[in-house]
Order: sequence, then C-alpha cells, then structure tokens
Amino acid sequence: MSDPNDLAAFLNDAWQLLRRGVADSRSPARYPTFATVSPAGVPEARTVALRRASQEEAVVEAHTDIVTPKVTALRASPIAALHIWIPKSNLQIRLTTRVEILSGEGVEDAWAKVPPSSRVSYGTVPDPGTPIEHVHAYDKPPERDRFAVLRCMIDHIDLVHLGDRHRRAEYARHDNWVGNWRAP
Amino acid sequence: MSDPNDLAAFLNDAWQLLRRGVADSRSPARYPTFATVSPAGVPEARTVALRRASQEEAVVEAHTDIVTPKVTALRASPIAALHIWIPKSNLQIRLTTRVEILSGEGVEDAWAKVPPSSRVSYGTVPDPGTPIEHVHAYDKPPERDRFAVLRCMIDHIDLVHLGDRHRRAEYARHDNWVGNWRAP
Repeated sequence: MSDPNDLAAFLNDAWQLLRRGVADSRSPARYPTFATVSPAGVPEARTVALRRASQEEAVVEAHTDIVTPKVTALRASPIAALHIWIPKSNLQIRLTTRVEILSGEGVEDAWAKVPPSSRVSYGTVPDPGTPIEHVHAYDKPPERDRFAVLRCMIDHIDLVHLGDRHRRAEYARHDNWVGNWRAP
Repeated sequence: MSDPNDLAAFLNDAWQLLRRGVADSRSPARYPTFATVSPAGVPEARTVALRRASQEEAVVEAHTDIVTPKVTALRASPIAALHIWIPKSNLQIRLTTRVEILSGEGVEDAWAKVPPSSRVSYGTVPDPGTPIEHVHAYDKPPERDRFAVLRCMIDHIDLVHLGDRHRRAEYARHDNWVGNWRAP
C-alpha cells in the first residue's frame, strides 16, 4: 500500500477493483448489492452483475429485465445505492447514483454483446416475482424488448478500509472527486 | 439436496445458513448488507454483522453505534432490507424487516457479551462520517451509552437459488411462513 493519507490513491484503488469486477466474473466487485426505494417507501436490495465501470464518466452499469420491481422502484425514485464488500482488501465501496433506464434501440449494441446463454435472463414468463404453482412452472425465452441497461451516474463514493487503523473517505461529483477523510 | 419442490425445506436451509452466520465469522451470512431509506428518501446500504438469528421469532439482530446515519434513517422510516449472497450455495436471501432500536438498560446483557476489543466500535470521536483533517484524526473509546441493538422483525423472506433451473420462493409472517413459489 502507498501513503495511507493519499485520498486520490485510495479512490484509484477502488476504481481498479470496480474495473476488475467488470472483467472478472469471479471478482467480488462483479456482484454489487443494488438498493432502491419502492413506491411505498420500502428499501429493496438485490444482487446485480456489474457490466461497465468508467472512472472518467463516474458511471457504472448493470443490466436488467425491464419488468422487474427494481425498474418499477427506479421509475418512482431514480436513486440507487450500490454496495460492495471486497473481503481480501477489507474494503467497503458504497456508491450513491442517479439511474437512467435505457431500453429499445439505444441498447442494441449492449444486447448484441450479451451471450445467447445469458439472454434468457430477460424475458421470464410469467414476470419475475409472480406466484406459480410448482417450483419450475416458468419459462425463460430471450426477449430483446425486455432487456434494459441501468446507467448509474455516481454522485457520491464512500470508502471504508478496515485495517489496524480504519480509513474512511468520501468523494463527490460536485467537488470533482477531490474527497475528504471521515471518521470511520 | 432434498425435494426441490419442498417450500419448508428451502426455508429451513436459509435459516440454517443464517444461524451459521451468527456462529461463524467466516460465513458469508455473517455480513449482510443492510439497506435503509434516509430521511431525504435516498437508499443507503452498508455491511452489518449478524449477531442473532431466531427462526422461532423470525427475528435477526445486528449491533450499531447509535449516532450513525443508519439509526437516523431508521428513526424516520423503521424498515430495513437485509441482503445476503451465499456463493457456495448459490443462494440469495432477502429479508424485509421492521426494526426496533434498543439501547440503555435494555441492552445491558448484550453489551456484557461484546468483547472489550470490539467495544471500540461504539464511541468513535468525532461521530462516524464527520470530516477530519487527516486519515487517522479520530479516536475510538468504548462508549457503552452509544451501543444499540437493531432488532429486526422479519415480515418477508425472499429466496432465490441459482441452479440448472432457478428456484425462487417468498414467505411472509402474515401467512405463518407457509410460502409460495415465484417466477425467478
């Protein structure tokens, strides 16, 4: 580890782990917990797969079936919190984001890159969450029209590193990611 | 695995993993992601440690420093979602809970069981999240008065098992945890 008091290095470490999450399906950063608020005001959290991470734009992306409750939640309140715990690094990464739901022609390129075996994640019949009579009473045809990209524009990043002395920092888009240390 | 169409066995598997999380700090169920809604309506998520899991009461508990934002959030909106992903089991456990914040004399017994080395998690000066000048410009005295138990009364449990054929079920307190299968 470099200088523990270096805010920029701490942030760069986190971005490197996010990029690894996109590239490596075995990385813990591959599977953030994605928290939203339902129209009734109830917190909801589920696993998503990280599909893109751009430090330059401060954007991360996940894919979803557009008929899922997380899309319903985001239409009512387009804010999502992403939470990642990296065991080997003892690092907690928390992102607060504004989410755009992209679908239709705008996501043609992203859909083209989804392997056929994964396309069945978009199109479950009946809709995900619907009660069914038997454990396997559903089908999973690929449905291109139900594929959506969740484009998450990051406004805040909160990092906590657990060590002999814990380190915590917060970074914000509005101050160009300069960041500051926080009591952990 | 037993009969894949057995709702009660599926739920019992999840509770067994939750109990293991309490007993074994290396279990993935030890560290749920705990999602709340801030007074401004923003979803917030952070790691907590699972300290108790009672299937009989349908209650799980975590501990917290009472001055943290999660307590502020819970005072405004006492609903929390707990999310756990168990890699080896390919199982996602999601709990929707009503949270009671217990502190003072009512948590004397719980505090007595907190090892001295862990008591420093309750009492950071300045308060957690406060901006500080240097990465280590904080102190962590143990403060018994800041120790609180988050008693999470579970209303819903949603389980998703990823396998050759995915399985998903939802269980609710109001129907005495009988549960039903859902499209995954």
